[in-house]
Amino acid sequence: MISVVILGAGNIATHLFNVFEQSDHIHVKQWYNRTIDHLKHYKNKVDITDDLSTLEEADLYIIAVSDDAVARVSTKLPFENRLVVHTSGTVNIHDLDKKNRRGVFYPLQSFSKAAPIDFANVPICIEALDKTDFKTLKYLAKTIGSPSYKINTDQRRSLHLAAVFVNNFTNQLYRIAHEITESQGVEFDVLKPLILETAKKVQDLSPYMAQTGPAKRNDKKTLKKHLDLLKNEHHRAVYELLTQSIQNTHGRKKL
Amino acid sequence: MISVVILGAGNIATHLFNVFEQSDHIHVKQWYNRTIDHLKHYKNKVDITDDLSTLEEADLYIIAVSDDAVARVSTKLPFENRLVVHTSGTVNIHDLDKKNRRGVFYPLQSFSKAAPIDFANVPICIEALDKTDFKTLKYLAKTIGSPSYKINTDQRRSLHLAAVFVNNFTNQLYRIAHEITESQGVEFDVLKPLILETAKKVQDLSPYMAQTGPAKRNDKKTLKKHLDLLKNEHHRAVYELLTQSIQNTHGRKKL
Repeated sequence: MISVVILGAGNIATHLFNVFEQSDHIHVKQWYNRTIDHLKHYKNKVDITDDLSTLEEADLYIIAVSDDAVARVSTKLPFENRLVVHTSGTVNIHDLDKKNRRGVFYPLQSFSKAAPIDFANVPICIEALDKTDFKTLKYLAKTIGSPSYKINTDQRRSLHLAAVFVNNFTNQLYRIAHEITESQGVEFDVLKPLILETAKKVQDLSPYMAQTGPAKRNDKKTLKKHLDLLKNEHHRAVYELLTQSIQNTHGRKKL
Repeated sequence: MISVVILGAGNIATHLFNVFEQSDHIHVKQWYNRTIDHLKHYKNKVDITDDLSTLEEADLYIIAVSDDAVARVSTKLPFENRLVVHTSGTVNIHDLDKKNRRGVFYPLQSFSKAAPIDFANVPICIEALDKTDFKTLKYLAKTIGSPSYKINTDQRRSLHLAAVFVNNFTNQLYRIAHEITESQGVEFDVLKPLILETAKKVQDLSPYMAQTGPAKRNDKKTLKKHLDLLKNEHHRAVYELLTQSIQNTHGRKKL
């Protein structure tokens, strides 16, 4: 049994609380937030507090607050030599106050407040300065059914950046596709199976091997037809840059 | 029972043959290809030919050849007033020779030769000049378990273009993410659940509603950190353009 105190009331904190609560091997001793109102809904399930000086002793403190607030909260903790981790993709492990044993427990997934999360699909990036602490965090990930990876601060930052490409930027390409189809009165639904298939394909194949299409083939006729069709100047800029990107990767000349 | 002749031996032709063969309601009468060698593997399953003058009578002729060859093949067909369709995303329905009844049966999905296809996940874009022919094509799609949509030539071209954004360009973003993680010695595997989740999210939510991240929030600190991390000039150009694109969509100022 591992005892945990959660600090923060955002998406990650809430999803962690929910998954921890389902486990027989994890006991959430206390849940802290600066504004206790956000925790009121949970007051019958867990001891809630907005006062750091009342924090109870636990095996692990998880600071799941905004990136900017991580260091400040860690400094205010009224104890020493306990295991304190944050959940951020970008904050350095050394930004945590060194009076405690430090670590990172970064779940790399897109969390929305409403939808329930299957933690089997949430890779946890773990970092710790101490071997025993690393094992504790690895055990925690295993207990909630998540795959875990040993990732240092530089690597974690790269992952956070790469996540913007595969999540936010990819979603923006979906948005542009939506704009293109909508302008012709076509349902976006027609594209949904292809969107899913494209994501599934790289689960087993590298993106390099999975690539197809006119840019890779350097099919100039189709590339020209597409550019002629694109009336939106901004869509055209995206088309040109990503076509060039594919051709750089696959050794074709510039557009 | 609907009788079909397939012309061409590429990915689409082969996948259509395989799915037609499994149906009790479709009979593939003949399979034509200019180079008969590519069909030899199937000679015990279907009548194969490389001679257009020997084509048998059938309810439907499916021209699944390269875009450039569609019109030429349709002109060479030695009969009139039969239903002839092509399977291309970009070829005009009127490019088919008008001596026959014309239509389009365009499966919008990413086909690779090796992997088997579940046609339940292949939307078919249907166009026909005649109502009865349209119904025949709709019935064919239903018989192989595919959803179908009535899509005219202009709409089909938009879909073909939009498909490049959600398939080839999205895959290139995966590739860039792979390059970023690889440069730090991180396994690309860590990103795979996020890739899948991003695609799943827009199955129920519009891409507009699904967007999150530093660009949408206009989180300048994170945007700057990311740009500093990006040593590859080309990656930086993609980051800047797609950040701007998100901010255009969500009403933020330029980077």
